[in-house]
Amino acid sequence: MPAVDKLLLEEALQDSPQTRSLLSVFEEDAGTLTDYTNQLLQAMQRVYGAQNEMCLATQQLSKQLLAYEKQNFALGKGDEEVISTLHYFSKVVDELNVLHTELAKQLADTMVLPIIHFREKDLTEVSTLKDLFGLASNEHDLSMAKYSRLPKKKENEKVKTEVGKEVAAARRKQHLSSLQYYCALNALQYRKRVAMMEPMIGFAQGQINFFKKGAEMFSKHMDSFLSSVADMVER
Amino acid sequence: MPAVDKLLLEEALQDSPQTRSLLSVFEEDAGTLTDYTNQLLQAMQRVYGAQNEMCLATQQLSKQLLAYEKQNFALGKGDEEVISTLHYFSKVVDELNVLHTELAKQLADTMVLPIIHFREKDLTEVSTLKDLFGLASNEHDLSMAKYSRLPKKKENEKVKTEVGKEVAAARRKQHLSSLQYYCALNALQYRKRVAMMEPMIGFAQGQINFFKKGAEMFSKHMDSFLSSVADMVER
Repeated sequence: MPAVDKLLLEEALQDSPQTRSLLSVFEEDAGTLTDYTNQLLQAMQRVYGAQNEMCLATQQLSKQLLAYEKQNFALGKGDEEVISTLHYFSKVVDELNVLHTELAKQLADTMVLPIIHFREKDLTEVSTLKDLFGLASNEHDLSMAKYSRLPKKKENEKVKTEVGKEVAAARRKQHLSSLQYYCALNALQYRKRVAMMEPMIGFAQGQINFFKKGAEMFSKHMDSFLSSVADMVER
Repeated sequence: MPAVDKLLLEEALQDSPQTRSLLSVFEEDAGTLTDYTNQLLQAMQRVYGAQNEMCLATQQLSKQLLAYEKQNFALGKGDEEVISTLHYFSKVVDELNVLHTELAKQLADTMVLPIIHFREKDLTEVSTLKDLFGLASNEHDLSMAKYSRLPKKKENEKVKTEVGKEVAAARRKQHLSSLQYYCALNALQYRKRVAMMEPMIGFAQGQINFFKKGAEMFSKHMDSFLSSVADMVER
């Protein structure tokens, strides 16, 4: 593991084998980070998906509890008690659904979105700049080859000057794209740490919030209500 | 809505049109209850499924957080901090997974199983006894028809006696099956109330338990840890 922080921009113009070798280390790191980020995103989306499904499932359950009243049972004796109890449970499930919905939204905003943003912005930028740098390097190599194949005769001076200009232009282009590419790779190293931890901070804060509100909600009247319903059932 | 509690067993033998009419009311009620129970079970199974998926999703996320260390990043500078933070988060997700798993088990045992049991035992019993009662009634009708078609001549006395025995046997059989069927229908009315409320008591108790443990778990060290990680990220 090389003890370097970043690719030095002043090395970009010379483009030495040492610099190229260091560049390949940064590229490998970016590749590993891209793979890992995709897997992490997938795992986080699965958690988000489960949370979302819980919202839908509690919504359906609440509706189903209310639907008891509308069944038009042929024998309705004693049903008032069941209806009012199921109404109460439906409200409980609704309140729970509010908490689940809030958590789902929070997971989307503070866990899934930041990592999608990191992938779409930072990682995609690196990959785009890599392609541009590759193209510019190729162009530069081609113009160099063209220049070196020129005959040494004096009468070719004019052609030589022109190809020389081409080489210089290609080098400027390559230099510029390497500067941008190096910057993006350096920035990625800087962003990496935050990008890995930020979504989990969002996850944990969402859970803290969820459990706090849930504990408050259920501690209120639930215990006494539940024991009265349990009595009713055992009667 | 008839103001009756139950089918009177002493009416079963006479099998009057009034009793048949009351029976059909009980049957209609049982049919409505069967439909509603199936829908409620479906809604409850969806909640259980979402809870189960949350267990699997948190398990995968925890593993993925630990996997960061094993990525062999080409550039590992500053990674110790990321690794130890992700390890901590992985532990948090593991603890959360324990709570989710416990809730899933509780929902299975105290919400889904009781209503499955109600369907498989009580509702299926009624439906089976209905079929048996139908068969016995048919047999009785057939033997009655056979008896009524017998010629009135004196020399048929022996055949008459035999068919008469058949009718008596069929009536006994029908009487017995109607007694069982009436009992099951009466029991269903009694069980209905409990069967509807019991799963939701299980649901609510599971949630109370879940939020209580979750709030305890997250209130402990999480807040100070999170702010230190947030500081780290903003550094």
